[in-house]
Amino acid sequence: MAEEAFSQRTATCGALTKADNGKTVILNGWVHRDRNHGALHFINLRDRYGITQVVVDDDASIELQDTAKELRMEFCIAVTGIVRLRPDSMVNPEMATGEIEVKAEKIEILSKCAPLPFQIDDGNEPREDLRLKYRYLDLRTQGMQQRMKLRNDFIFSIRKYLEEKNFLEIETPTLIKSTPEGARDFVVPSRIYPGKFYALPQSPQLFKQILMVGGIDKYFQIARCYRDEDARGDRQLEFTQLDIEMSFVKRDDVLLLIEELFNHVFKEVMDYDLPAHFTRLSYHESMNTYGCDKPDLRFDIPMFDVDDLASKSSFGTFGEILANGGHVKALCAPKTEGVDFSRKYITELEDAAKIYGAKGLAWIKVGADKALSGGVTKFFGGLESELIDRLGANEGDLILFVAHENWKKCCTSLGAVRTKLGKDLKLIRKSFEFCWIIDFPLFEYNEEEGHWEAAHHMFSMPQIEYLDTLESDPGSVKGDLYDLVCNGYECASGSIRIHDVELQKRIFRICNFDDETAEERFGFLLNAFRYGPPPHGGIAPGIDRMVMIMSEQTSIHEVIAFPKNTAAVSPMDDSPSELDQQQLDDLHLIINKPKQKE
Amino acid sequence: MAEEAFSQRTATCGALTKADNGKTVILNGWVHRDRNHGALHFINLRDRYGITQVVVDDDASIELQDTAKELRMEFCIAVTGIVRLRPDSMVNPEMATGEIEVKAEKIEILSKCAPLPFQIDDGNEPREDLRLKYRYLDLRTQGMQQRMKLRNDFIFSIRKYLEEKNFLEIETPTLIKSTPEGARDFVVPSRIYPGKFYALPQSPQLFKQILMVGGIDKYFQIARCYRDEDARGDRQLEFTQLDIEMSFVKRDDVLLLIEELFNHVFKEVMDYDLPAHFTRLSYHESMNTYGCDKPDLRFDIPMFDVDDLASKSSFGTFGEILANGGHVKALCAPKTEGVDFSRKYITELEDAAKIYGAKGLAWIKVGADKALSGGVTKFFGGLESELIDRLGANEGDLILFVAHENWKKCCTSLGAVRTKLGKDLKLIRKSFEFCWIIDFPLFEYNEEEGHWEAAHHMFSMPQIEYLDTLESDPGSVKGDLYDLVCNGYECASGSIRIHDVELQKRIFRICNFDDETAEERFGFLLNAFRYGPPPHGGIAPGIDRMVMIMSEQTSIHEVIAFPKNTAAVSPMDDSPSELDQQQLDDLHLIINKPKQKE
Repeated sequence: MAEEAFSQRTATCGALTKADNGKTVILNGWVHRDRNHGALHFINLRDRYGITQVVVDDDASIELQDTAKELRMEFCIAVTGIVRLRPDSMVNPEMATGEIEVKAEKIEILSKCAPLPFQIDDGNEPREDLRLKYRYLDLRTQGMQQRMKLRNDFIFSIRKYLEEKNFLEIETPTLIKSTPEGARDFVVPSRIYPGKFYALPQSPQLFKQILMVGGIDKYFQIARCYRDEDARGDRQLEFTQLDIEMSFVKRDDVLLLIEELFNHVFKEVMDYDLPAHFTRLSYHESMNTYGCDKPDLRFDIPMFDVDDLASKSSFGTFGEILANGGHVKALCAPKTEGVDFSRKYITELEDAAKIYGAKGLAWIKVGADKALSGGVTKFFGGLESELIDRLGANEGDLILFVAHENWKKCCTSLGAVRTKLGKDLKLIRKSFEFCWIIDFPLFEYNEEEGHWEAAHHMFSMPQIEYLDTLESDPGSVKGDLYDLVCNGYECASGSIRIHDVELQKRIFRICNFDDETAEERFGFLLNAFRYGPPPHGGIAPGIDRMVMIMSEQTSIHEVIAFPKNTAAVSPMDDSPSELDQQQLDDLHLIINKPKQKE
Repeated sequence: MAEEAFSQRTATCGALTKADNGKTVILNGWVHRDRNHGALHFINLRDRYGITQVVVDDDASIELQDTAKELRMEFCIAVTGIVRLRPDSMVNPEMATGEIEVKAEKIEILSKCAPLPFQIDDGNEPREDLRLKYRYLDLRTQGMQQRMKLRNDFIFSIRKYLEEKNFLEIETPTLIKSTPEGARDFVVPSRIYPGKFYALPQSPQLFKQILMVGGIDKYFQIARCYRDEDARGDRQLEFTQLDIEMSFVKRDDVLLLIEELFNHVFKEVMDYDLPAHFTRLSYHESMNTYGCDKPDLRFDIPMFDVDDLASKSSFGTFGEILANGGHVKALCAPKTEGVDFSRKYITELEDAAKIYGAKGLAWIKVGADKALSGGVTKFFGGLESELIDRLGANEGDLILFVAHENWKKCCTSLGAVRTKLGKDLKLIRKSFEFCWIIDFPLFEYNEEEGHWEAAHHMFSMPQIEYLDTLESDPGSVKGDLYDLVCNGYECASGSIRIHDVELQKRIFRICNFDDETAEERFGFLLNAFRYGPPPHGGIAPGIDRMVMIMSEQTSIHEVIAFPKNTAAVSPMDDSPSELDQQQLDDLHLIINKPKQKE
C-alpha cells in the first residue's frame, strides 16, 4: 500500500459545513469509530482538526462495502465522497462538522492498524509506561493534542510579545564546560580529547550574562536545560525554560516585564484576564502567612503569629518552646459542609504537620456563640475572644496551632496543614493566582558540608545594605532575588546579577570556592567582568511547569511530547541503552560496573 | 561601583532626534570613542541601538571633567545631560542621531574596561581564536550585532509563517537512543544505569516521523542537532535546523511550502524578492550541466556533453576514453576584461580539475572571426563551427575539455573548473539563486565496507517505478528525495518517507542491517508503523548555513553566538575539560587514555 499514490485530502476532518453541501471532497484521516446501523456503515473519520462522519450507504458498490467491512479502529484511510446534509434528527450541534456527513464513494486504506494496546479515547487511563511506549497512539488523544497545541500557542505568544519589545532570541551552546554546583551535570565525552568532556547546560546562566557583557541588551531564549537529578512528576532530565536577561535594569523592570508578558499571553492563549500586577510577598511574609515560599493563593486560610497569646496561656508546651526562643502559629480551618473535624481527621492533619518537624498539632473547636471547646481550650481561659478575633474564627471552625523552636519548621509544619485543608475542604478556586516572592536570603548553611552556599545561585546580587556584612553575617543577607509563584508552584526564578569582579569573588569565597578554584571554573565569567559589564538581571520561567498549570495537569509528562518515565527511561525507544564496543573505544571509555552489593 | 544604584536610561543611544531638543535625558552605554577637541571632550556612546555623541563642555564642573578624563574605550557608563542641536557644520546625516548631541551634566562609571585585546571596530580582523576567547567583546561589533539580529529575524519570520499555516512547533527529546548510522553520535552516560548511555540526536528524524504517526499532521521545530564529526568552517558539533514534517503530502507539497516560506521570509527580513518557484534540476542534469549537485547559479558557464564532437575529432586521448565507455565534456570560459587566459592560468584550472580525478584539461582559444587556435585545436579540423555553436563561444573565449571514463569524475572535474572560473572571472552576481535538486539515487555503494548504503538516510521512499528492482539493481534506484541549494551551498535536504513496515525492512536489509539488528535499533519506528501511519514527508533547512548565506559570510561561526573553533574547543570557557574523579565515579567510567604512539 505504501507504494501507491493516494487520494490527497481536499479538506480536513474539521472543515466541512453545510456550505459545502453537494461538493465532492477527499478526506484523509483515522477511523475513530465505526459502526453499522441497519444497512448503513458509519465511520467517524478523525484528524488533528476534527471528526467528520462518513457514511457508506446501502446502495454502495460491493467493492466499497467490502473495503468498509475491512476497516478497524485507527486504520489510516482516504475517503472520496460527496458532502450532504444530515437529517435534522442526526444533526450534532457539539461538532463543528455536525450538520453534514460525507457519503463515501471510494475508500482507500493507506495503512492498517494492529490491535490497540489501549483505546484512543480520553477518560481512558492506561498506565503511564504503556502510554509512553505507544506515545504515537497516546498523542492521537484529544487531551494530548490539545496540550501540544496549548504549549505551541503559549510559546509562540511569548515570542511574539518579546520580539515586539525588542528582545533578541539567541541560541547559546549546549556543549559547554562542566561547572558543577547545585545539581549534577550531564556530560558528553570528547572523542578528540581523551579524558575530556563537554557538559550539557543546567541553564544558559553564564552565557546569558556574557551576552549582556556583549551588548545584546535584551535577550531571551526558549532553552533546553539538563539536570542529572532523580526524576519526579514535575522534573525531567531535560526541560525547557524561557530564559530572559536584560541590561541596565533594576528588579522592578524585570517584574513588570513578566507581569505584562503573562497578562498578554494568558489573554491571547486562554482568553484569561490576569491582574495587571501580581501580589508581592517577602520571603518572610510568605513563610509566616502561608508556611512556604510558593504559596497557593487560590484559597485563604492565612496563618497567624500567636506568640503573645500562647505566652499568656497556661499551656506548658507552648511556654517551654517560647522560652527557648521558639514560635507559636495558628490558623483557622473554616466550617465546611460535609466535613467533620473529627479526632481522626485532626490526626491526619497532625501527621501532615509532623512531616515538616512539628511535634504535635494543638486544636480548639469554635462552637455556638463562639464558645471554645476541646483540645487545648482549657489553657486559654480568658483569652477566648482575643484568639477568636485574631483568627477571625466563626462557629464551626477549627483552630489549629503549631509550636516549634525553629521558626522555619514552625511555619512549614503549619503550612502543610494549610495545604491539606485547602484540598480537603475543597477551597481551591479555579483560577491562576500569581504572586512574587522577594527578599530571599542570599545564602543558606549547608550543614552536611559545613559551609555557606548560595540559596539561589552564586551570581545573584546581595541587597545593597548588606554589602558590608556579607562575610560577618551571611545568614542575614538578603538578595535581589525574586520567584514567581502560581497556584502553589514555583514557576520562575530570577535575580539582579553581580557584575563586579571583586564582589563576585567575595561571594565565591563565602560559598567555599577559593580563588584558584573559582578562577578555574568561572574564570571566563570573571574575565568578562573585566571588560565593561553592564548592570543586568533576568529571570527564567519554566515552560513545562507553566503549561502544566495552564492545562490543569499535575505532571509535566502531560505537556511534553516524549518525556522519560520517572525511572529516567523512555519506554518507547528503550533509552538509555548500551553502546557498541567501537563507540566506547572511540571515546576512550571503560565501563566500571559497580560490584553487586554483598 | 557595582553596588550602587545607577541612573537608568530614559532613552537608548539610537533614539534621540532634533524633536528631543532641550530635553534632559539619561543614556547608558559603552564608550565607543572619545576625543578632545580644544577644551571640549567628545564621547561616542554606543549601545545595541546606535551611537549618540556626548559632549563635556569646557564650562563643565571640575568633577565632571575629571570623570571624563578617566574614561577609556569600552567603559560602561551612565550619562545624564541635555539634548541640543549640533551646529550645522557638525550634523552627520549618516547617523540616526546625527542632528543632536547630549551636553553631559553627570557621568557615572558603571564599570571599567581593561585594555582591549582587539579594537571593537569592524574592518578589524583579529584571529579567530582571539575573537572566540573574548566573544563578549566580539559580540559588541556592528557586524556580530547585525548578524545576531538577522538570525533572530530570520527564525522569527519562519515561525510566524509556519504558525499561520497551522504547523505546530513541538520539542522532541535530545536525550535519546543511540542509533548510529552515518555520522557518529555524541553520547551521555547514565548515572542511574551503569554502562548505559543516552545519545544526542543527529536530527529529530525518527521523532518527527513518530509525531506524524501520532496525528500531529504538520510539525516544525527549530531543533538543535549534534554530530560528532571533525569540525569545519560550515560544520559545528552542534547546529540548528528548521525541522519540518507533514502528513498526507507528496513531494511537490513540500517543495511548494518551502518556496512560499522562503519567498515570504526573504521579503520580510531582507526586502528581497525571490522567484515564486525555484528551478528544478534532476541530480543528473545538475551533474551534467554544473558538475556538482549543489550548483552555484549566480553565474552561467554551463557544461556541455561533446561526446559526439570528440569522437569525430582526431584527438587520440578522447577517442580512447570514449572507446572505454567514457565521456567528454566542455565549457566555454567567457572573455573577461583584465583576465588573460595564459598558459599559467590554464595550468591553475587544470590543477583544480585534477583534484577531482581528471588527468588533464584540454583547451582551445577562440580568436577573431571565431578562428580557433592553440591546445587541441588541430584535432578539431572541420568541427570548428559545430563546436563554437554548441558552446555559444565568442571571440576571446576559452574552450575547456575534460574527458574521463567515469561519468561522475568527468562532471565534477570540469565542475571544479567552472567554480574556479566563476570566482576568478568575477562572474558571480550578487543575488540568492535557489534551485531544487531532485531524483537523487537512493543508494550508494560503500566500497570500503562492501555494501550498499542509503545516500540520504534509510527512511526515504524509493520512487514507485523502482519498487520491484530495489534488491536486484540498487544502484539505479531513484528516491523521492530533494535538496534545496542556494549559491552553491546545500541548504536543505528532505524526502517523502517510507511508512510501510515491509518496505522499510527491505531498505534496512539492502543497507546491510539484518532484521535482528534493525529491530534492535529501529524497532520503535517499525512498531509505530504497525499502527496506522499516514503517508508523510519533510525537509530540514539548515539555519546556520542559511543565515551565513544571507549575511554573505563564508563561515557559520560568524552567525553563531558562541561557536567552537575548528578544533572543537571553546577558547572562552576551555571546554571540553576534565571532570572531577567524583563525577567519573558517579558515572561508572574509567578513562582509557591512548598510549603515546611510539
